[in-house]
Amino acid sequence: MAKKGAKKTKLTKKEYEARVPILREQLIKLQVQLKSANFPVLLVIAGVEATGKGEVINTLNGWIDPRGVEVFAFHPPTDEERARPTMWRYWRCLTPRGRIGVYAGSWYTEALREASIPRTDPKLFRHALHRIEHFERLLVADGALVVKCWLHLSKADQGARLKKLAGHPRTAWRVTTGDWQSHRAYKRIDELGRTLRRETGRTGARWTVIDAADERTRNVAVTTTLLDAFAAHVKQQPRNVPQAKRRAITPLRPEGLKKLAALPLDQHLTAPAYEEKRDKWLGKLNRLVRQAAELQRSVVFVFEGWDAAGKGGAIRRLTSAIDARDCRVIPVAKPTDEEKAHHYLWRFWRHIPRDGTVTIYDRSWYGRVLVERLEGFAREDEWRRAYTELNDFEQQLTEHGTIVVKFWLHISKAEQLRRFRHREETEYKRHKINAEDWRNRRKWRQYEIAVGDMLLLTRHAHAPWHLVAAENKRHARLQVLKLSCHQIETALAET
Amino acid sequence: MAKKGAKKTKLTKKEYEARVPILREQLIKLQVQLKSANFPVLLVIAGVEATGKGEVINTLNGWIDPRGVEVFAFHPPTDEERARPTMWRYWRCLTPRGRIGVYAGSWYTEALREASIPRTDPKLFRHALHRIEHFERLLVADGALVVKCWLHLSKADQGARLKKLAGHPRTAWRVTTGDWQSHRAYKRIDELGRTLRRETGRTGARWTVIDAADERTRNVAVTTTLLDAFAAHVKQQPRNVPQAKRRAITPLRPEGLKKLAALPLDQHLTAPAYEEKRDKWLGKLNRLVRQAAELQRSVVFVFEGWDAAGKGGAIRRLTSAIDARDCRVIPVAKPTDEEKAHHYLWRFWRHIPRDGTVTIYDRSWYGRVLVERLEGFAREDEWRRAYTELNDFEQQLTEHGTIVVKFWLHISKAEQLRRFRHREETEYKRHKINAEDWRNRRKWRQYEIAVGDMLLLTRHAHAPWHLVAAENKRHARLQVLKLSCHQIETALAET
Repeated sequence: MAKKGAKKTKLTKKEYEARVPILREQLIKLQVQLKSANFPVLLVIAGVEATGKGEVINTLNGWIDPRGVEVFAFHPPTDEERARPTMWRYWRCLTPRGRIGVYAGSWYTEALREASIPRTDPKLFRHALHRIEHFERLLVADGALVVKCWLHLSKADQGARLKKLAGHPRTAWRVTTGDWQSHRAYKRIDELGRTLRRETGRTGARWTVIDAADERTRNVAVTTTLLDAFAAHVKQQPRNVPQAKRRAITPLRPEGLKKLAALPLDQHLTAPAYEEKRDKWLGKLNRLVRQAAELQRSVVFVFEGWDAAGKGGAIRRLTSAIDARDCRVIPVAKPTDEEKAHHYLWRFWRHIPRDGTVTIYDRSWYGRVLVERLEGFAREDEWRRAYTELNDFEQQLTEHGTIVVKFWLHISKAEQLRRFRHREETEYKRHKINAEDWRNRRKWRQYEIAVGDMLLLTRHAHAPWHLVAAENKRHARLQVLKLSCHQIETALAET
Repeated sequence: MAKKGAKKTKLTKKEYEARVPILREQLIKLQVQLKSANFPVLLVIAGVEATGKGEVINTLNGWIDPRGVEVFAFHPPTDEERARPTMWRYWRCLTPRGRIGVYAGSWYTEALREASIPRTDPKLFRHALHRIEHFERLLVADGALVVKCWLHLSKADQGARLKKLAGHPRTAWRVTTGDWQSHRAYKRIDELGRTLRRETGRTGARWTVIDAADERTRNVAVTTTLLDAFAAHVKQQPRNVPQAKRRAITPLRPEGLKKLAALPLDQHLTAPAYEEKRDKWLGKLNRLVRQAAELQRSVVFVFEGWDAAGKGGAIRRLTSAIDARDCRVIPVAKPTDEEKAHHYLWRFWRHIPRDGTVTIYDRSWYGRVLVERLEGFAREDEWRRAYTELNDFEQQLTEHGTIVVKFWLHISKAEQLRRFRHREETEYKRHKINAEDWRNRRKWRQYEIAVGDMLLLTRHAHAPWHLVAAENKRHARLQVLKLSCHQIETALAET
């Protein structure tokens, strides 16, 4: 436990006024330094009621250059937020590298509010905390500095402060009946706070408990905590960031490679046989997707596969069964500069579908353990960590009720060559092939290893991989339809 | 009027099957060409009920490469959308350059729905159409190809189609009581449609009326309309885009320059006098902003001014009066690549505050008629057009209830030099000055002209310019507070 004992010192006005200019100058220096740094700063200001979270943030905002800071407060979730996994609303306001995000209450507010309701299953609270812990660990692993201040008040101090606020006409509006309720439940809520800090203080995103009884002391303590944490973080940054190295790829799970090799690719299917079956499955898929929409379930399709394996064609058949008005296809190419300024999962989170709609990712977050692993865009510790991160990401989706359907479209190296040549020879297909495709092809064996590892390390009951033999396009398209139907049908039956 | 007469021809199945492969190939070609083009394509599919808007879009989606297309359907506005100006929800899903956005019903759906309610004031409909017309004109002027198809059905055909749909178990769910109501009100709604097309068909975003009685003919007609419009649009593109030229800047409104020169800059204010007044105005501003929030009004502050005129300092004093949790500062620097791929106003629309909150733009959309005019980032026709576009943008904000407070902070050239030197000499201010600032300074006279034009061409009762003498920082900061208070107070009193 990293919690510091809440200090009971009190600053005089004079001491305070002497400290403030120094703190302000240090804050500006911090901001200048941060601008060229490669990480974001997240400052979480949480705590019980009437500790002055808003005041601290306002004070800090007056000291700092407001152009480099964004403050996020969380009102009850909007309907757009409720229609997505819990953490979506926090992902959508993650601060980018080089900037400070100040989170009033942050992700802890909702977890605490829910847990405060009498007779709530304590398991739910643990679960919420676990999810938060994972979230912060993810950010920290990516280099983010997460500074968390817990503003503390004794029951007596809280009561005194509420009375003081309520007694003054200028501040009386700030005291709600909810505040008094939470004051009466002080002991219970204080206990929840302890649990919360214990469960979410281990990840390098530690809590600093700050006594908020005296406003000046509180303001200085929060600022000092931020400054100290920043200084320590900068010191920790490696002088020379170890360049990601491209080296020989060795399999983490050799069985993955075998699994891939064992897939028979010699299917045949005549055009009439295909068309008949296709229409049957398209009809079925259409019904299932509509049924899912009625139940406010969303569906996420993930298409991975070799270049020219037929992802585009398979997606086209799939979309023909789905109402285009409730379906988006997200082609995943190079990240934009806004995307690059965020955690690598941010660009996928931003497109997460609303309940009752469908999103198809044409290539996906698995790029992290495929192209980024191979090309050295991600360091070894980064892509190794990604397996867990990707599993957890998908678990959050499925927990919310999203059905995650994942495909790997598999072809032989010889078949790829045939298709590349065909693309080069066909005028309206020529745009689909470029030098990079040929380059990737030369790394076939390495990709195979990465794919094998991916298939084994990210298959889960909640989001299994469907390995599709795509040497025969008709067979592959039919398989995609069938497997989609099976998975959606099963998922709907389980609810 | 550009409306083509609705054709009554009917394609046989054989004819259709012969046409489809050709259309598909043309669509793919279109997409390949579009990828490297510098404009977006917006395809609007509107029309009365039961014309199969969804079917057309689904068909088209099956023909086209779904990776380059996004389909947008508009359900009733979400709470996040209702809390912002009407057009915000359309700006947020504008397709970027090089891609196709298909808009099911689009911005017309809501306008038509509102107008269909019996006894609705027809003025509201006209107003909505006027707003839409402006929106499309803006996009078209920026180079967008806007293709609008109006799917038409005679009353008899509509009735027959509804009956057919209702009679089949697989489609019966699609026919709602609303559809039958709108069928009974056919004449009125048809009349509304005519008005709509007449009022919004003049801007280079013309309507094509397509008879939807026969599904195959309808599908082909929509596709052909898109293909033809695209071909015509590409032809119209200038071979060599005229490079924006930097030339001698001459004033459009010489009085603007005089106004600027006439501003007295010799104010004095002692520190104690300032502090006393400041606290009074801060208190007042705090009350007014809270009052605005209670009334669900949002406030947008715009800060423009010379480099080193003290925008940052003024913003900091301002934010110190506002609850940081409901206030965002948007520093406007170079657009990101996502922003560059959109209309220049898109990056400002995306930050438009929710009702009851405050957004402060540190520099703003006025860059279009200042730096972009001067540096030739915008062509002459572009920045000239911008005055109207900016006025209209702000009018949309104020119509929604947003209070728009605009400042130009003015200093003399000599004072700027003093401040630049001071920045260079002060360690923690050095980051605030760079070569570009010195470059801009050499263009002082040209900027003056652009500023003068801006002040005169974009001042309006709904969003006046406040010209603030900023030679004395204390005076300027106080003025900003006072003027903000006055304007917010007046705006709140008017409601």
